[in-house]
Amino acid sequence: MRAEVVAVGTELLLGQIVDTNSAWIAERLAATGIDCNYQTRVGDNVARIREVLVTALSRADAVVVCGGLGPTQDDVTREAIAEVMGTALVLDREALAGVEQVFRRRHREMPASNRRQAEVPSGARIIPQRLGTAPGLICPLGNRLLFALPGVPGEMREMLERAVLPELGARSGVAGVIASRVLRTWGLGESALAELVAPRLAALEAAGEGAPTIAFLARGLEGVQLRVTVKAASRDDARRMLDREEATLRELLDGNVFGIDDETMAIRIGALLTAGRATLAVAESYTGGLVVSCLVAAPGASRWLRGGIVTYASEVKRELLGLTEGPDVTAAAAMAMARGVRRLFGADIGLATTGVAGPDAQDGQPAGTALAGFASGGGNDATSFEIPGDRQTVRELGTMNTLDWLRRRLEAEH
Amino acid sequence: MRAEVVAVGTELLLGQIVDTNSAWIAERLAATGIDCNYQTRVGDNVARIREVLVTALSRADAVVVCGGLGPTQDDVTREAIAEVMGTALVLDREALAGVEQVFRRRHREMPASNRRQAEVPSGARIIPQRLGTAPGLICPLGNRLLFALPGVPGEMREMLERAVLPELGARSGVAGVIASRVLRTWGLGESALAELVAPRLAALEAAGEGAPTIAFLARGLEGVQLRVTVKAASRDDARRMLDREEATLRELLDGNVFGIDDETMAIRIGALLTAGRATLAVAESYTGGLVVSCLVAAPGASRWLRGGIVTYASEVKRELLGLTEGPDVTAAAAMAMARGVRRLFGADIGLATTGVAGPDAQDGQPAGTALAGFASGGGNDATSFEIPGDRQTVRELGTMNTLDWLRRRLEAEH
Repeated sequence: MRAEVVAVGTELLLGQIVDTNSAWIAERLAATGIDCNYQTRVGDNVARIREVLVTALSRADAVVVCGGLGPTQDDVTREAIAEVMGTALVLDREALAGVEQVFRRRHREMPASNRRQAEVPSGARIIPQRLGTAPGLICPLGNRLLFALPGVPGEMREMLERAVLPELGARSGVAGVIASRVLRTWGLGESALAELVAPRLAALEAAGEGAPTIAFLARGLEGVQLRVTVKAASRDDARRMLDREEATLRELLDGNVFGIDDETMAIRIGALLTAGRATLAVAESYTGGLVVSCLVAAPGASRWLRGGIVTYASEVKRELLGLTEGPDVTAAAAMAMARGVRRLFGADIGLATTGVAGPDAQDGQPAGTALAGFASGGGNDATSFEIPGDRQTVRELGTMNTLDWLRRRLEAEH
Repeated sequence: MRAEVVAVGTELLLGQIVDTNSAWIAERLAATGIDCNYQTRVGDNVARIREVLVTALSRADAVVVCGGLGPTQDDVTREAIAEVMGTALVLDREALAGVEQVFRRRHREMPASNRRQAEVPSGARIIPQRLGTAPGLICPLGNRLLFALPGVPGEMREMLERAVLPELGARSGVAGVIASRVLRTWGLGESALAELVAPRLAALEAAGEGAPTIAFLARGLEGVQLRVTVKAASRDDARRMLDREEATLRELLDGNVFGIDDETMAIRIGALLTAGRATLAVAESYTGGLVVSCLVAAPGASRWLRGGIVTYASEVKRELLGLTEGPDVTAAAAMAMARGVRRLFGADIGLATTGVAGPDAQDGQPAGTALAGFASGGGNDATSFEIPGDRQTVRELGTMNTLDWLRRRLEAEH
């Protein structure tokens, strides 16, 4: 089965916003086993939207169009679809009731313009709105299907998962359930990870139809992710298949997996600290607050995070953390900072970063030199990284490297 | 003049990476006065790239295609263009010399596969590479033009500015220079800003051809930007027009402009502190290190930033910052934190944040309640914000609101 994605909005063509919807839709289509050969962006213009839809429908079994379902005169996706279907727009009572209900829930009067959102091409079914005001549309065109979704990312995603993917999955002859799980990794690049799991990829390929599929997604500061997708007869079967595949991959990936699905590095570290009943405090030099702000993003961080200090001026390191005079970018300094912040905040564990973010060298150390220090009741330790890139990259990768080092330490003790 | 953008890469169709190149190119085309009605994404497939290029060339005067110029067998944009031009690929000696030079500079041997990057469709001119290995291409097709650029964002942008926009500007009959300037604002939404500058927009519209144009770009945490674009006979004339327009807009925008072009909020604050010979220290509660990490991102921050502290546990606020017992989310607490961090770090100015990031209320205050505190030798002050949104949004918008509040204070004293 082949599908195409069409994003509607003049603001996309002017580059005023980046089209992230198409990538999201494409990724979910791929995970559902549906091919996507083309994606198109077009402005708020009936004739041009119509042309793009006709072209897409001539090449694909299904088209997902997003955007242009709002209440203003600019929003003309409905009109273009009606022209493609050769029908007129008619007021849909169910859709209107849905729009009215959204305004009632918000205790606001519905502007007359929002009635437009309940006009649907005759012959189309609506996808009831849950998050926003615009209902989605399912439009049959012979043996092809056209889906229209709102352009607001949250609304689009919810409707895609609820109404579009199941319908496409059913149409593409996938019996049962499609489910996926993301393994989040840090520490190796995409090609090194691919090498580690190469035997498994080969085995799955040989197993053919019905075997789990694995996709690599390079997510920058969130690491490289492996998405495992399975097709199964039931939700329970799917979960069992995912559990098995996760176990197999974890063995091959040897500690590089830090989280599953929505589990960020901070959430994982929080879980490990909570399990060990330990609290943490962080002293940062070149990372300048990124480590602690990353940790704070985990819900419930106040249970295990005592706080952090950014000692950007060298004399502050000495006064507040008790460092002695000497070069600041050394393993000894990183450990002294970790000990100092542990004491200052009364935490069980102290974590510290020191390094040269650049662009210039410092204390005879080139930009990209970075160290992390660790202190606990059991002793001290330090590690170092060489990080290529500009100032911001050094700080960001240094932050993730430091957190991952802590994560591995905590897992080893666990 | 009309142009289209085509992005090539199977990873785009799989949603493995988001296509930011197309938005960038579209924005620069719009600023150069060139219309763009369609953007297309297609995978690494010769027949499909050819089809997309033929369609685009049938609708537009120029097509900019990016991606697929790499050295691997997947990179087939060159082949597709040769088919569209009806010519063969030939080895270009200048292009080959360029590729070889890149490897010499990196002290690495050139893999044989990189010779592919020097094969260009007969009749095409190359755009010499400066940042990466792939040269760009300028391909005449009758009275139309096809440009091919690498997919690596930095390389693409450099070639677009250097070789594509000037050529398109000249072709579109724009005599002289096109220049633009970005006014970065914080504090008002896009529609409120548009209202403030409405009289000026109307005057420019009435002035017609030759008058500066103004575009609004909503940039999330970087604020709303106004891009002013002028066409002039010379670079000096363009600069004078931009200076005049900036002055007019600043008057209408009344303090909401915090920076120009690449001047971030942190860079602006650093400049104001440097001018006033003052140093800063930051105490953060709900923002959890975002304020200080934002400031550290400014080059040379060590000259004016003493450091910061994240007092996530309430008892740490009392021990290290000297707060007295009591509710932590108040103006008094924000000012006490600012005083405390000023003293702790020996800084001229103390800045503090306290609030409820959510999702739950705290001390009887709803999520989204946020305060900022200020302390200097001259006294203390506090302000409050109500921020809608989830935990991360509250922290991010609270950070920018706090920094903008500091910026306005420093400007007022300046």
